[in-house]
Formats: sequence, C-alpha cells, structure tokens
Amino acid sequence: MPSIDPERLLADLRTLRGIGAHGRGVVRPAFSAADMQARRWIARRYEEAGLEATIDGVGNVLGRSRNPGKALLVGSHSDTQPTGGWLDGALGVIYALEVVRALASDDATRVLAADAVSFQDEESRFVGCLGSRSLTGTLTPDIERGAVDRDGVTLADALRQAGLQGAPRLRVAPGRHAGFLEAHIEQGPHLDDAGMRIGVVTGIVGLRGMRFVFRGQQNHAGTTMMARRRDAATALYELAHRINQEFPKAAAERSVWTMGRARIEPNATSIVPGYAELDLQFRDASEAPLEAFEAIALRLVAEMNARGGVGIEVARARAPIPPTRMDEGLQEHIAAAAARHAPGKWQRMPSGAFHDAGIVAERIPSAMLFIPSIGGISHDFAEDSRDEDIVLGCQVLADAAAAILTAANARG
Amino acid sequence: MPSIDPERLLADLRTLRGIGAHGRGVVRPAFSAADMQARRWIARRYEEAGLEATIDGVGNVLGRSRNPGKALLVGSHSDTQPTGGWLDGALGVIYALEVVRALASDDATRVLAADAVSFQDEESRFVGCLGSRSLTGTLTPDIERGAVDRDGVTLADALRQAGLQGAPRLRVAPGRHAGFLEAHIEQGPHLDDAGMRIGVVTGIVGLRGMRFVFRGQQNHAGTTMMARRRDAATALYELAHRINQEFPKAAAERSVWTMGRARIEPNATSIVPGYAELDLQFRDASEAPLEAFEAIALRLVAEMNARGGVGIEVARARAPIPPTRMDEGLQEHIAAAAARHAPGKWQRMPSGAFHDAGIVAERIPSAMLFIPSIGGISHDFAEDSRDEDIVLGCQVLADAAAAILTAANARG
Repeated sequence: MPSIDPERLLADLRTLRGIGAHGRGVVRPAFSAADMQARRWIARRYEEAGLEATIDGVGNVLGRSRNPGKALLVGSHSDTQPTGGWLDGALGVIYALEVVRALASDDATRVLAADAVSFQDEESRFVGCLGSRSLTGTLTPDIERGAVDRDGVTLADALRQAGLQGAPRLRVAPGRHAGFLEAHIEQGPHLDDAGMRIGVVTGIVGLRGMRFVFRGQQNHAGTTMMARRRDAATALYELAHRINQEFPKAAAERSVWTMGRARIEPNATSIVPGYAELDLQFRDASEAPLEAFEAIALRLVAEMNARGGVGIEVARARAPIPPTRMDEGLQEHIAAAAARHAPGKWQRMPSGAFHDAGIVAERIPSAMLFIPSIGGISHDFAEDSRDEDIVLGCQVLADAAAAILTAANARG
Repeated sequence: MPSIDPERLLADLRTLRGIGAHGRGVVRPAFSAADMQARRWIARRYEEAGLEATIDGVGNVLGRSRNPGKALLVGSHSDTQPTGGWLDGALGVIYALEVVRALASDDATRVLAADAVSFQDEESRFVGCLGSRSLTGTLTPDIERGAVDRDGVTLADALRQAGLQGAPRLRVAPGRHAGFLEAHIEQGPHLDDAGMRIGVVTGIVGLRGMRFVFRGQQNHAGTTMMARRRDAATALYELAHRINQEFPKAAAERSVWTMGRARIEPNATSIVPGYAELDLQFRDASEAPLEAFEAIALRLVAEMNARGGVGIEVARARAPIPPTRMDEGLQEHIAAAAARHAPGKWQRMPSGAFHDAGIVAERIPSAMLFIPSIGGISHDFAEDSRDEDIVLGCQVLADAAAAILTAANARG
C-alpha cells in the first residue's frame, strides 16, 4: 500500500492557503486573480508529480496520468466562497496531488493511472459546479447564458479577463475512468460531535426549493379594520409557522428545511403589507421526504387560498437536485481503508452539502470521504480541521485509490 | 347661523391642490418649495379674510382674529405625504378659512373670534405634528434634536432653507381659546361603507409599538440538523403567527394590530438566519385592549424564551401615544349641527389615524369632524371625496363654530 508524506501534504496545503489569504481565511473566488494564480501553481505541482497538466477553457486544472489502463479521477475544487475557509475544496485538491505522488513512489502502485483535478466555480460565483459540469459534458448553453455574479459581471467577461477565452474545454474521455473520488471536510458537526475521524459518504442529499408569493392589499395600519385587511405578511407568518409545525411529521432522521429569506412590501411598521415573498428550501438523502414536504406545502397553500383574502402563488425557486447515491463498490474500498487506519473511528453518513461528486456521479461512479470540521464550522474564516485528521484522511484516500485501481485493472 | 359659500370653498381647495400638484395627487412635504409657497398663499387668504396672519418659526401659518372675547382655534395641516392626496390636511385648512369668512359675513356672528391655523409637518417628514407641538408648547429640544428626514436632511437645515431661521415661534395665548376644531377626511372606509356623510369623532386611538429582536445562530442550511438549529426566522414566524391567533381574544371592536416590518439576517435562501427583527404596532381608542395586547405579547415572548434556543428581546419601538378623548361639549355642538344638516346621515366614531387634534387636546379642549373618503383611500394620489360632502362638512363646522363661540362668550 502507498504511503503518503504528511509533511509534504501539509506544506502544500499551507502554500495554497497563502494564495488569497485573509487572516485565517481565504478569499479566492472563481476567476479572481488569486484563483487563477492558485490554478497555475496547482498545474505546476501536477507536472512535478509526473502528470500532464492543462488549465482548460472554464478554468478546470486537469492533471492526466501518463500511465495506461483504467484510470481513477481524484480531486475537488480550489475556488472559495467570497469569505471562505482554507480547507473547503482545497483539501481534496491537495489530497489528489499527494495520492498521485504516493502511488508513484511505491513499486506496487507506480503503474496505476490516477488523474488529479481542481474543478472551477463549485461555489457558484457564476454557475454552481461549473467546472465539473463542463468536464462531464452536462454544462448546457442555457445554463451558461446570462450567468452573472452578484456584482453584475458576466461569466463571459470573467473568462476573458482570466485569459481563458481561447482555451479548449476538456471532457473526460468516455470509458477512461473506473471512478471519481472526492475528499472534503464535512462542513457539519456530526463527525466532530461523535468523536469520529473519517466519514464514508453514502449519498449527497437532494434539494428542492419553493418560492411563495403572497398578494394582498396595502393599507393604512390605523384606519383599516382587521376583518377588512388582506395582509400579505400575516399570511406569510401563518404559512411559515404551519410548515414548521407540519414538516416534522414527514421528516426522516436527517431531513432539513429552511425559510431563510422573506421579503415584505413596503416593509414599514405602520403600513399593512400588500405583497410578500417567502423562500422554502428542503433537503434529504431520499426522494420520499422531499415528495412529502412538497405535498404538505401545497396542501397548506391550498387551504389558505380556499379561505380567500390573500392569494398565494407557488413557484419552483430553482431546479431541484435529486438525491445522489455514492457508488457502493467505491464506498467499500474507502470503508476498508478507513477500518484499517481508524478502526472504530469511522462511519457511513450522507452529505448535507452539495459537491462536485454530485455532478460527476451522473457520468462516472463516484464516492466521497469526509474528515471532521472542528465545531462543524465552514464557509467562514474560522473553518479548520486537526492536522492528524488531515493526514489520516489522505492516507485512507490513497489506500482506497490503490485498491480501486488495482481491482479495476485486474478486471479490465 | 352663518352660511358658507360652496363655490368659494371649492375654488380655494382647488387652488391649494394646484400648488405641488402631481396628476390627481399632491407632493407638498413640509418645508418643500411647494409647501412654503402654499403657506404664503394661505397667509394672504387669511389677511383677505380679515385675520392677522403670521408664518412662525416652524412654518405654522396662524391667522388671529382681531375680535375681542373668547376665541376658537380652527384648522389642520397643509403639508402632505411624499406622494399625498389633495384633501388630507388641506380640507381642514380651507374649512377654517371659509368658517372665518362665513362668520364675518353674518351680522349675528361677525363679532365672534375665530383663529385659523395651518400646522406644519403633521406628516412626519422630521417630527410628526411638529407645528401643533410647537404652538401648544409641547415641542421639547429633545424631540427636535437629531430630527432628520429619510434623505438625511436635518430639521435645522430645512428651517434655514425655508428662510425661517430668524422667525419667532408662536405659542397659543393661555386662556384665549374656548376650543380647537379640526375637520379632516376620514382616511378609512367606515362612513363611505355605511352611507354616512358626517363623523363626529369621539376620540383618537392610542398607539403602542414593540420591536422584537431575535438572536439565534447563523448556520449552513444543508449540514445543520433541525434539532441543533437556533433559527431566528423560525422564532419570528412563530411569534408573529401566535400574536395573530391570540390578539383577537383581547380585541375591542375597532382594535387593530400590524406587523408590517420584519428583517431577517442575512436573508438568504440557503442560510439558517442568526438574527431577525419584527415590529408590532397596535391601536385602540381605550387603554384596556392596549394593556391586554402588550401583556399577551410579553407572555408569548416569555414562553418562547423559556424553551431556549433563540433569545427574544423586547424593546418599545417608539413613545406610546395614549388614546385621546375629544371634548364632550364640543362634540355636542358638532353633533347638533350635523343632525340639522344631515339628519340620519351622521355618526359618532373614533379616529384610527392620528391628527394634530391629538396634540392640541393636551392644552385646549378639542374636537374633530370627518367627511367620507371615497373607498377609504388615503395617503395616495387617488384620495378623494364628493363635492357635496365637502360642502356639507364645512357648513356643519361653521354652524358648530358659531354655536361654540356664542355659548363661550355668553358664559363669559
């Protein structure tokens, strides 16, 4: 089995952290100067590790193995949230580099073909998972057209400014890969709370969104009697509270739902609001609770609309993401490596956050490995993990990669 | 009894409407060029009606009668909402002018002393009821200090720009007035709905405000399990809905409550909110329902705080306005005149909106007369009343003024 080099791994993670560093955090959004600098550095490291490195037309860094046979794709993303942590994405990118180096330095695994990748714009500056969509061929012109960041910059302008306008967009070669492995910090508290060190991801939760639009009648808050009011905010408060009362009855163990955005017009203390909006988002690893939640929300809206007064319309807020199951065979290889290096300290678990693996899984069997996030904190400068967990996770990934490739090439 | 001149009344109302006209509405906020132009025009009309007219240091236009004896103060305000209707305030200002002229043209009432007033900034550009507060001596430096409009202009700058910085601020002479009469459009639908033409106002509703501040913990909407969340918006929706369920049990016939303003931070679909605010405002003509509402809100907050999770703090959002009773004797005179001119078509009623009479009543016995607002619409360009109601209301007011002054001077 290959042995990773803990010092080399941690040193590379810290170098990458230095590109776009802000205090303890990192500001390296997709296509920013820091992001492109990081991608050029990653490409050089890939070459030093013996890979054939390319930055493609959407900014993906792909390092292709020169070895023949079935290959394994390993990686994550190196772009960050606008105020991001140092490990979100970066961990999996440097793990991939180290796995390639570890495989190459062991006689038994030197012949295996591991490709490394750093995807672009997983964090949705323009298009969430832009890079993995592009590499796997599911990025449509429809998705790309009209993509702007929150400052109004278009994706096309960002590509031009990053010097990528002429570069070809790479696609994974059909049949080349036995699988895709993505390692990531958990971004939640489960592993840390339970004292576990490795999570073998069983699936990525699905997500649906609904937007409720409430149309009432704006009025004077002193002279309009209660019986005559058509108060959009009153309807919003009722629907939101009833959803929070009804959803637990249909929830699975890890179902979550959030109503984090509301808009009330004109939002003045002394005016009966005539218009309001409420966003509802819900996630689960299975379709059944998602179906049940949607049915409950629609039933509550129908009940309230039947009463009259405020009219409630329902719109799908975004394209639903179906739950994704991680490949069972790949999971077994990660689980076996975890059991070897962290006996009793690993568990299977779904991912509550979305990842590139959720995109890649549509085309290539995929699996994920989590290491603990201290305090469950992520998308924040304070995001961190313990060095010993970082090192352990990479060794488990390297073992799993070697086992997967050995098995695939024995079959193949 | 004096007779008003309907044509003169309507002509003056239309002339005033033309100053700051925007389509069917009027834009004449306090201290704007249009507002000051209107005040100079009103002052000239006062002089023409035989009054001694002054624009004082806060912009009030006061027209003092030259007659001896007990006087009656009559008037309203000529400033408007940022996008106001043509009758809100203006009606009562021109009524006062016409009442003075009607009294002067009748031998029986020529000797009576009616003062006319147009108060400044009733509509709260800087300080709600600034003018009536100043004239009655309840405007404190505390209230005035730091007064800015929503564009950040200070009251002091507005006074300077209007050329009022040197002008003395007038005060009502103690003992001069037997009462204050303010006529106004209803700004609500009650008279129009009931087919009534005159409202004799029994009191101005009191108003209290509370601001609820919810402190939870901002978190990732995918990875933070429901049991672990401290979602500020969830608590806001619950409290608001429970208030809407509980308040009807303590409400009087015309109690109203409004939660027209909510703020959720960071107000993003995919983030569990850590902070929220909710404003609650409630009004009634009596203190008892106001006390009951406040107690219910505090009990609900205490129950929710006892459960833990999100912490809710309660702040008084503004100084409470106690309910104001209109003077019984003055009401009787208005009622008698209404019964004479509109038998079966008048009613007693509280005012759900606040008015200068609520300020003046602290120092001088006060009463109000309402005419119907078509469709109850106000604070809107579409605000309107029928000409025949406008004429009727002024005649009732003139009769009441004559009777009040005659009685006051007979008592002596």
